[in-house]
Amino acid sequence: ARPRELGIKIGVLPTGLLNAITDVPGVQVGHFTIHNGTDDHTGATAILPISGNIFQDKLPAAIFVGNGYGKLAGYTQVEELGSLETPILLTNTLSVSKGMDALVDYTFGFAENKDVMSVNGVVGETNDGGLNDIRKRLLTAENMKQAIANAKAGKVAEGNVGAGAGTVCLGFKGGIGTSSRILPKTLGGYTVGVLVQSNFGGVLQVAGVPVGEELGVHKFKKLLKDYGEDGSCMMVVITDAPLTAKNLKRLAARAMLGLARTGGIASNGSGDYVISVSTATSVRMNDANNEMLRESKELKSGNLDVIFEAVIEATEEAIINSLFAAETVTGYKGYKVEALPVAETLQILKKYGRLN
Amino acid sequence: ARPRELGIKIGVLPTGLLNAITDVPGVQVGHFTIHNGTDDHTGATAILPISGNIFQDKLPAAIFVGNGYGKLAGYTQVEELGSLETPILLTNTLSVSKGMDALVDYTFGFAENKDVMSVNGVVGETNDGGLNDIRKRLLTAENMKQAIANAKAGKVAEGNVGAGAGTVCLGFKGGIGTSSRILPKTLGGYTVGVLVQSNFGGVLQVAGVPVGEELGVHKFKKLLKDYGEDGSCMMVVITDAPLTAKNLKRLAARAMLGLARTGGIASNGSGDYVISVSTATSVRMNDANNEMLRESKELKSGNLDVIFEAVIEATEEAIINSLFAAETVTGYKGYKVEALPVAETLQILKKYGRLN
Amino acid sequence: ARPRELGIKIGVLPTGLLNAITDVPGVQVGHFTIHNGTDDHTGATAILPISGNIFQDKLPAAIFVGNGYGKLAGYTQVEELGSLETPILLTNTLSVSKGMDALVDYTFGFAENKDVMSVNGVVGETNDGGLNDIRKRLLTAENMKQAIANAKAGKVAEGNVGAGAGTVCLGFKGGIGTSSRILPKTLGGYTVGVLVQSNFGGVLQVAGVPVGEELGVHKFKKLLKDYGEDGSCMMVVITDAPLTAKNLKRLAARAMLGLARTGGIASNGSGDYVISVSTATSVRMNDANNEMLRESKELKSGNLDVIFEAVIEATEEAIINSLFAAETVTGYKGYKVEALPVAETLQILKKYGRLN
Amino acid sequence: ARPRELGIKIGVLPTGLLNAITDVPGVQVGHFTIHNGTDDHTGATAILPISGNIFQDKLPAAIFVGNGYGKLAGYTQVEELGSLETPILLTNTLSVSKGMDALVDYTFGFAENKDVMSVNGVVGETNDGGLNDIRKRLLTAENMKQAIANAKAGKVAEGNVGAGAGTVCLGFKGGIGTSSRILPKTLGGYTVGVLVQSNFGGVLQVAGVPVGEELGVHKFKKLLKDYGEDGSCMMVVITDAPLTAKNLKRLAARAMLGLARTGGIASNGSGDYVISVSTATSVRMNDANNEMLRESKELKSGNLDVIFEAVIEATEEAIINSLFAAETVTGYKGYKVEALPVAETLQILKKYGRLN
Repeated sequence: ARPRELGIKIGVLPTGLLNAITDVPGVQVGHFTIHNGTDDHTGATAILPISGNIFQDKLPAAIFVGNGYGKLAGYTQVEELGSLETPILLTNTLSVSKGMDALVDYTFGFAENKDVMSVNGVVGETNDGGLNDIRKRLLTAENMKQAIANAKAGKVAEGNVGAGAGTVCLGFKGGIGTSSRILPKTLGGYTVGVLVQSNFGGVLQVAGVPVGEELGVHKFKKLLKDYGEDGSCMMVVITDAPLTAKNLKRLAARAMLGLARTGGIASNGSGDYVISVSTATSVRMNDANNEMLRESKELKSGNLDVIFEAVIEATEEAIINSLFAAETVTGYKGYKVEALPVAETLQILKKYGRLN
Repeated sequence: ARPRELGIKIGVLPTGLLNAITDVPGVQVGHFTIHNGTDDHTGATAILPISGNIFQDKLPAAIFVGNGYGKLAGYTQVEELGSLETPILLTNTLSVSKGMDALVDYTFGFAENKDVMSVNGVVGETNDGGLNDIRKRLLTAENMKQAIANAKAGKVAEGNVGAGAGTVCLGFKGGIGTSSRILPKTLGGYTVGVLVQSNFGGVLQVAGVPVGEELGVHKFKKLLKDYGEDGSCMMVVITDAPLTAKNLKRLAARAMLGLARTGGIASNGSGDYVISVSTATSVRMNDANNEMLRESKELKSGNLDVIFEAVIEATEEAIINSLFAAETVTGYKGYKVEALPVAETLQILKKYGRLN
Repeated sequence: ARPRELGIKIGVLPTGLLNAITDVPGVQVGHFTIHNGTDDHTGATAILPISGNIFQDKLPAAIFVGNGYGKLAGYTQVEELGSLETPILLTNTLSVSKGMDALVDYTFGFAENKDVMSVNGVVGETNDGGLNDIRKRLLTAENMKQAIANAKAGKVAEGNVGAGAGTVCLGFKGGIGTSSRILPKTLGGYTVGVLVQSNFGGVLQVAGVPVGEELGVHKFKKLLKDYGEDGSCMMVVITDAPLTAKNLKRLAARAMLGLARTGGIASNGSGDYVISVSTATSVRMNDANNEMLRESKELKSGNLDVIFEAVIEATEEAIINSLFAAETVTGYKGYKVEALPVAETLQILKKYGRLN
Repeated sequence: ARPRELGIKIGVLPTGLLNAITDVPGVQVGHFTIHNGTDDHTGATAILPISGNIFQDKLPAAIFVGNGYGKLAGYTQVEELGSLETPILLTNTLSVSKGMDALVDYTFGFAENKDVMSVNGVVGETNDGGLNDIRKRLLTAENMKQAIANAKAGKVAEGNVGAGAGTVCLGFKGGIGTSSRILPKTLGGYTVGVLVQSNFGGVLQVAGVPVGEELGVHKFKKLLKDYGEDGSCMMVVITDAPLTAKNLKRLAARAMLGLARTGGIASNGSGDYVISVSTATSVRMNDANNEMLRESKELKSGNLDVIFEAVIEATEEAIINSLFAAETVTGYKGYKVEALPVAETLQILKKYGRLN
């Protein structure tokens, strides 16, 4: 069961129906997963903010770099133009190039893109090289396209799936997690959805409870020089609130605050990136027509606070969800990463007054 | 009593002797405070990373902007050159100019600066205009210089002092707070100190416990459009670890993660800035000598994680300290801001298993 | 006479009627100038993008930092919010604080701003400490307000006026300069205006002609270690093209390309800042009304190239204009800076086929 | 012949022996070129700042984004860590992924990298889709590795080679170009080398002479809405001056000033990136040893001006060199791009007093 079903409450805002990024109307998610013997635990996750030809109907977008020790593709163009022109792919560190190829193929697949000669694919990654024999570079562009083809609305599989197949988070098996928040009608009624690929280190907190310390599993338990480099976190934030790049960048920055609340520290070796996108039609950046001017209608900045809160809460919960969903994996060279012990964690949460 | 003396433990690393920014050898802090009738509640706080003529012995430094709705002076030069050449002053929004004047006077006060024609004063601010009649612009450059003159090593006054005289944080009276962490000898044994001027909004958490919700005092309690703009947080991070600007910027970014753990959201109206400085002699940027090259010895990036953790923990604790130290104030136009009810808060912490 | 009147043509686009920033409808410029004996050569220049209460009718704006060794006030808030809420003041390095005070006074002077408690004054500066006894800090907030009060439409005084009274540029007396470009009707017909305070070093080129080398006056003439630190350049770009902050930042970056064409190098000691603003009503950021959403109409990015060209050309010409207008000054401690020898320069331009 | 051999002098500093990036000791350049019938005109260029295993001997590096409409790989990690761990590859827009794969292969090819699981390949690109049937995606990772294998010291082929096979610049056939500058011994005697892949638009100037206007070939000749999107410029700056990332970023920014002097405007559709690297041994970032601290010796910022000048001059000349070397190509769908008419250009330069 997901944490919220178990009675764990994170934050003060209500979730959407599925408590998933797919609560944002139109968003689709697809996974391609490899679990093959002990050596191969990897995959890809595709997030389609809208269906149809996004290249011809670009969405306002921004990317915030929490810590840039990573290989995400697409950053500088999103930063310059403030728009997203492909689905988002998440995968492992050495497969970003295959994701880029897949997104070019995908874009060229639309008849009306027949003259397109430039595609800025956005591909995020974390390093699953602990559990997965990453140097093998198993994933193909076809696999990536399969992830896109698998994308659908509705419930999102979490844990050891897609790009989360081989990740490790806060000392336990990490993976894909998702969550959402709904704003009150008086504040616009918008939905904010988050999906994460969790693969980072720190001292686990669940709803503010020091679970990592209680379980004796955390990065600084041994204050020795060899505490090791750890991974990264990819966070995707999508909302139907009408926002353009400048404010989407500010939303993206807040996802790091959600990560912080799970005990994350954005460690030196981490590639922590947040991609944020608005799906609202009133801010689309369709340049197809011949007009010099574009009209748009966007939320004034004075209304952002509750959206910031929503991003923070949904990011925190998405990470916790990834940990509750992930299962123990024995991987490459016999390296074994345990799942978060859920029963024990619930006991700790009870001890700390967070569960009845 | 300070939270830690009351048994509240934040984080996993040990504090310094004073649990204050002054645990970093050589650091001095001074306040100038005005509490005058109901109308005037403001002041200035000076932080001297080293004693002596800092202009001739520049320190590596960086400033991270968590949210830039603020008037901090000195940002672009610190960003370009990576050095600090004056003490740091904190004050109210409309008194930054007076702080700049004071830092020029201070710099000109050293005989060996007699040919100096350019001074990049770093002055941070938050807006105390709720409790303080800020439009009066009461503070003078002389007052600022008094704050500098008052600077000393040792215990640091917290709460309604200096630049914290009139601030409001997470629904309660905020103010100045400070904390520190000591790294284990195996990891360098360095000290990390943080001082904050807390004036921001969100949903208060104390050591992960939802105190704001329990007390029914938080930003999103009423999900109405008029939840109001709230203030800012100035954070100063000083360490004797030998770091240059590039890594100091990364330290500064982590302070925002500490703020997040208190329930802060870096709201739209917030000016959240982190100034980070290294006092290590092996990285000083003294250009007085005639050499073309500068030798330095700095910590490799692979050793930063425990420092990141230290910054996050000390920032979280400094903010909580500011709330525990601050006292109820009735201010301008009779506006009253209550102190955090400490007894009640301790009860809540007990209920949540965080205190015996 | 101004260079263009002398037959010097810079760029391929036509200028506005006055070849000045005031060709942009509504823009006003005012100077306050001190030339007092040998010691005092300084002042302030005010640029009002629109008349009336700009605080209640904020304009999209951006600031690009070409080289950040400077003390400009207002950067981080413009960067965060993308808006300008005060006139722009230019002055000397140590008088920025007085400019900030003046802009607060100015803002408080409007009855409808009676509840305003926070003002982000934008004040740029260069260091006139060669010719001016800058440590005296002669300029007052009243002087700054006088510059604002002096602001008017129409012809703009250039050279040794206002903030340009004591500046030095490319080895000659610098100062205030301005220029403009008009876009063809087919490309929108917009006006782009630039005003500069020139105080920087390099190897002077006039319309591509190596005047600095020919005159034997340039930064690298003696390739010795003591070529000295030189100053800065403040550039203000205003247009009536409807642009928001993201694209205004890109415009601002192009002004540096104009500076490059005069022989500027953005030297280490330079504070080179570009402030760019749109005055178009369709992008104003008036938050006074109660709507959650803001409608706007802005130029699509695909139409920017000719505006980039306009910014580059007008910046180049504004700098050259400042040099042609400035006159020889003997200043502090008898330091004398010669004006560009115009007759000789025209001869050189003839030799290089740029003049008949 | 190269422009300088023809008597065209750009800037005031002397060039290195080869007037090429390979004047910096240790630098090697290799091309892989395809010219196949009319359809295929593309390739890759590899720049190796040092020979040997750069992954184990990382170099300080920075990337400046002049205009970010591009797909360069590797940006965020270089920005975060300030180091380069692979050779640099330049290629076409849709082949960046192949370059990334090649750089992983290359890195894995060193025995001592057998445990490496993460490689931040730096791959720049411009779009040769006018002359080249880019959608075919002809280039393979093997081709890229061939470019690396071809790398050698000494003379560098310019024009229609490697990544410059199909590029277009300022209305003429562009391509690869390179240049260098030597600092006087009194200023350190360092070498600064630049290599460009020129593919951008504007109004061509050669040594300040308005050649584009004279030839009637430039972007704004017809001030019509359909002036079209144009390409990009990749610039690689390498020096043996001991500099770390912070100052290398400042060097990189200056390359844009060199581009400006050729008439470039960093147009909306341009991906203009500058990669700058120091090869000095005193600043290498080798983390292999077990020390917590790293000693380094770097040039003080006060000595940068002449290096800035060198970067600007060498970038300008490298672009001009690319134009002089490139030859007319008839490409995809019969699209023909003329080489710069050298004889005519020399006549124009004579007319403008720049040639005897």
